Amino acid sequence: MILKQRKLVTIVIESSLARRLEQDLLACGAKGFTSSAAHGTGPRNLRASDIEGGNVRIESVVNNEVLELILEKLKLDYFPHYALSCWVSQVEVVRDDRY
Amino acid sequence: MILKQRKLVTIVIESSLARRLEQDLLACGAKGFTSSAAHGTGPRNLRASDIEGGNVRIESVVNNEVLELILEKLKLDYFPHYALSCWVSQVEVVRDDRY
Amino acid sequence: MILKQRKLVTIVIESSLARRLEQDLLACGAKGFTSSAAHGTGPRNLRASDIEGGNVRIESVVNNEVLELILEKLKLDYFPHYALSCWVSQVEVVRDDRY
Repeated sequence: MILKQRKLVTIVIESSLARRLEQDLLACGAKGFTSSAAHGTGPRNLRASDIEGGNVRIESVVNNEVLELILEKLKLDYFPHYALSCWVSQVEVVRDDRY
Repeated sequence: MILKQRKLVTIVIESSLARRLEQDLLACGAKGFTSSAAHGTGPRNLRASDIEGGNVRIESVVNNEVLELILEKLKLDYFPHYALSCWVSQVEVVRDDRY
Repeated sequence: MILKQRKLVTIVIESSLARRLEQDLLACGAKGFTSSAAHGTGPRNLRASDIEGGNVRIESVVNNEVLELILEKLKLDYFPHYALSCWVSQVEVVRDDRY
């Protein structure tokens, strides 16, 4: 089956910011997102209370242009203020009109 | 460590269809799957009620032959009827007899 | 935006072992992890009771050296004893000092 190239961007953020970030993803042009409850720790939040704290893992399949807009948004409005994690991977999709 | 190439297929589907899809993945030859509760939105379900609705995020590491069978199954029995999301990525595994 | 290459290691393990594995990831040099509740089945646990059992899906973005240490740890202390799943994928990050 012929598959089309897209990018999967995954962001882990504290629960209180999840809804705002989801809306920002859509505003950047993402056609959808998937969110799951998560917990974890990162280099900036190693205290025990943070390990227990609730995070949300948000992922979205996007094209390169939308990815660039999302990363710029994160760099401007999120990275300087919040302890979120973000990574990007190459994925393939069957129906490229959906992403 | 020597790693072997496999494919990771990730599918997000409404909760009511998750069990059926999990069984279809195994029937296609997947040796296992991992499912997590999720919520989200996509190009076909942008209504507020859907955003709150429960989805399941199902993933499975498979070889190329099984991947092809899964994508054919989705194309035939799921994509025309349901608002699922699906993407595929390249992964590596240590123990290739498990996948 | 310039992105840096890292590895994403994903491990699915029974809930009772999750905290131990999370600590082992940090001990291997991972700077953080993200964990989500999951269920599923694999080649070694196809009984109905296992399908219902609780798993945890743990993921961590690491560099190649830390990845190697994690895989060695899994090979030595986990793979021979437990029914975990593990796969590795290539990812890109914006802020490489965090991973």
